Order: sequence, then C-alpha cells, then structure tokens
Amino acid sequence: MQLIHSVSELRARLAGESSVAFVPTMGNLHVGHLDLVRIARQHGRCVVVSIFVNPLQFGVGEDFDTYPRTLEADCAQLQGLADVVFAPSVAEMYPLPQTMTVTPPPIASELCGAARPGHFSGVATVVLKLFNLVQPQVAVFGKKDYQQLHVIRQLVAQFNLPVEIIGGETVRAADGLALSSRNQYLSPAERGEAVFLSQTLQAVKQNLLSGVRDAAALERQAAEALAARGWQVDYVAIRSQATLAAPTSGEHELVVLAAAKLGITRLIDNLEICLEG
Amino acid sequence: MQLIHSVSELRARLAGESSVAFVPTMGNLHVGHLDLVRIARQHGRCVVVSIFVNPLQFGVGEDFDTYPRTLEADCAQLQGLADVVFAPSVAEMYPLPQTMTVTPPPIASELCGAARPGHFSGVATVVLKLFNLVQPQVAVFGKKDYQQLHVIRQLVAQFNLPVEIIGGETVRAADGLALSSRNQYLSPAERGEAVFLSQTLQAVKQNLLSGVRDAAALERQAAEALAARGWQVDYVAIRSQATLAAPTSGEHELVVLAAAKLGITRLIDNLEICLEG
Repeated sequence: MQLIHSVSELRARLAGESSVAFVPTMGNLHVGHLDLVRIARQHGRCVVVSIFVNPLQFGVGEDFDTYPRTLEADCAQLQGLADVVFAPSVAEMYPLPQTMTVTPPPIASELCGAARPGHFSGVATVVLKLFNLVQPQVAVFGKKDYQQLHVIRQLVAQFNLPVEIIGGETVRAADGLALSSRNQYLSPAERGEAVFLSQTLQAVKQNLLSGVRDAAALERQAAEALAARGWQVDYVAIRSQATLAAPTSGEHELVVLAAAKLGITRLIDNLEICLEG
Repeated sequence: MQLIHSVSELRARLAGESSVAFVPTMGNLHVGHLDLVRIARQHGRCVVVSIFVNPLQFGVGEDFDTYPRTLEADCAQLQGLADVVFAPSVAEMYPLPQTMTVTPPPIASELCGAARPGHFSGVATVVLKLFNLVQPQVAVFGKKDYQQLHVIRQLVAQFNLPVEIIGGETVRAADGLALSSRNQYLSPAERGEAVFLSQTLQAVKQNLLSGVRDAAALERQAAEALAARGWQVDYVAIRSQATLAAPTSGEHELVVLAAAKLGITRLIDNLEICLEG
C-alpha cells in the first residue's frame, strides 16, 4: 500500500491504470469505511482511498478543527485492503482560493442542507476535484450519508462524469447505532442514548410496512419522541429514494431520514423502506 | 470524418483513444474555428469538434433562437480536418433539467459577465460536461473570447481537470475585424463600420506601447470614440492577462478588451499588449 500526499505523485502513480475503484473518506476509519473499501476491491484492480477533511464542506461553528485526524491508524487499517492512500494537505487540494464551486441541486437545501448551508456545495466540489485527480471507473459511498450519495449521483448524471457510483450499506454497532466518526464525541451516557435514533427510524419503518400512510404524522411523532428524551431534532423525513422529495402517492421505494443532536454531537441516520407493490 | 449525435455513440467511438484533442464550438464555422482545429491536429491523434448551441449560456432576450445553425456546411468544412464531429441535440446534452451548475469565479461577473448574467456559468457547465464526455488530453479555445478562455483555464485549474488548454490567436478579416459568427447579423453599412472596434483597440495598444500609463483615461477616450460613431459601448477595459483584474502598477502583460453593440449586433474583441520590461 502506497501513501501519497501530492497531486503530482498521485497522477504519476495512477497514469495508465484503467481499472480504478475509489473510496473518498475524511479518515478516522471504522468498520463502515472498511466495508466500502472491500466493495471497491470487487470493482477495480487498483483501489484508491482518499483521506481528506475538506474545509469547504464545514460551516462556521462546525467541527472542522476538532474532526478526528488519525492518519497513521487509518493507514494501518487499510494495509492489505487498499493499493493507494491519497492524503493531501488542504494547501495541496486548494493551492489557490476555490472561487469556482459546484452549485448543488435544490434538494441539497433541504434535510441536512437546511441546517448546513453550503455543505453539499462543498461536498460536490471536493468530490468533483477528487474524481478528476483519481479518474476512477467506480466510486463507493456509504448509504449512511444518504443525501450526500444522492447529490453525488446527481453530480455524475448532470455533469456526465465517466464513473459508476455504488452505495454501500450502513454498518451498525451491535445495538443498532450507525457507525460514524462523530460517535466518539458522545459521552458514555450519550452513547447509551444514541441507539434511540435508529430505534425511532425502525418504528417509523414498521408503521409504514404495517400500512400507516400518514407520513406527516409519523414524522411528527418520531421527532416528538426524540425531543422528549432530550434530542434537538433537525428533521425526521419520509422521502422518495429516487428523488429525496416527498413521495408521490403511489411511490413504494421510500427512505426515512433523521438528523438530531445529542449534546454537542449531531448524528444522522436513515432506513430504506420498500412498501409492497 | 464521423458525425455523431448521441452521447452513447460518442463514448463508444472514443473508448480507448488516448490522444484526443478537442475543439468545442457553437458551429457556423469560419476560418477562425478551422484554425483552432488545425492547432488541435498538432496536439492529438484524434481530433474531436463539438457543435452545440448551448441554451444555458444565453440570457433572456439574447440570440439563442436566431443563432445561425449550419451543420451541413460545418461538416463539409471539417472534412479532412476533424476525425469526429459531435453534434448533440439539446435533449441529448440536457436529458434532465440542469439543476447543478458550475459557479464561475468573481471575475466572470465583470466585463462580458456584467451584461450577460449567468453566461459564464452556462459556459463553464457545458464545457465541463463536454470534457467529461470527450475526455480530451488537449482542448483549444479561441483568444477572441478572451474572458471565456480565462474562465476555462480557471475551471481546469480549480477542478483539477486532466486537460491542457491552448488558446488560439484571433483570426481577422483583411480590414482587421475579428471573425465571428455574429458578424453576419451586420448590415453592409454596419460591416463597414465594424472595423472601428479593432482600430480603437489598436489605438489603445499604441498609446500604451508609447508610454501612456493612464489606463482609465485611455479606456474612457476609446469608449467615447466608439459612442460618438453610434456604438453602444458595454466596456473598454485594460486588464492583466493573467487575472483579468485591473493590472497592478508593475504589470507588463496586459490585454485591452471591448464589447459594444452596432445596431442589434453585439461585437467583442481584444488585443494582448506586452509592455517593455
């Protein structure tokens, strides 16, 4: 496994590679990331993992400065799984002020985008840059960041990028909590409580599967249940998998998404739901 | 020479081509375009010319509907010069609403961008799409659209696109008028007058070369000279070649740019100026 920090070295290493599968990450890798890397291995002869905490996708007052940076441990975990780890500095990715950006689709202003203005523009911009540097045939993103995956699929479709996007299933702790680098911000008590987010989404899913169709009521009840236990709820939303818009009446492929804060820690999670046709 | 209308056929034709030189155009080709294609031939084994009148870069009330479309004549001119002509329909380039766009740098709101809001976002967006479809190693753009060339160079630098941009010199009629598809909108009397635009830029250039340093006065005098002959002047501006910003005091690589309307026809032109060091 080769650790590369510079754009020029990356380009030289990948020149002539015709089967590259790529997993962009912000590092601090956990089992969920490693699962994405294993998926990448099934789709490319050369597996590239990027580790870059992208300032462009963090808002004022967010956790850019404190986001965990653990490059050495990350590389140890990727040993034998990845061929190339690309870990550029901020100056290497943004040698000049990034005055050109990608404007994301309107859906990027809803859900997580409502609480994080500019976030998905920052994500789309850095992913476009990374795609142009790595030039992968396949790229793998986790479904845990469901709205991010949607924006990336739109990026590829709307800009005709020559890359196939694969969504990897969310990996969960034994109690159901979705794995996330931000889980380590949780106090022991908060870690105990955190599982309630996925349980709440499971309850919404069961209600939908058992025939309840009042999405607004289900969203409201779920948000109230979280709030009653001390969560600050950003949103609980039942949406179309394909568009992330409110589902049309006949739509069967749904997803319920939520974002809520426990103390200082903002957690997100989602569950896909396929109603009987 | 192969004429291709669909994205899928283009991708199939170019798969495996490792030396592609690309000239994006809006068609209605003249000698200036053909010159760019000849430059492309020097830089790639496979020369691709796109012909696409891009609705995204035209504003309300501009000439999208009337812009001359002459595909058959264009192909005849490209015979023996290009290997592939890509002439997609609007539906082929924009099968879905283009809700994601490229936000251009601030300089794109000045000069031509001041009169044409959204123009350079439309240019950058379609060029990014075309680059992703054609995947050229080299792309050639005319210096006549100097600000466009600047925005494209920024697009490549800021998004790490793996393509080299070459600027082709402006080709002029015998009297000095820069060749442009829009010249054919001119009445015979206007065509006679049109040369005054390049003559005005030449006068600014001579003044700078002979030591005059009051750029603001030169710009004002040039604009007044045009206005006095019935031109509606958008701007005459002396800028830095590298940044298109107002030049710093020690800067020697300058360009004088102008845009002005003669009747209904908006003409642009520019001249590069290298002051003695």
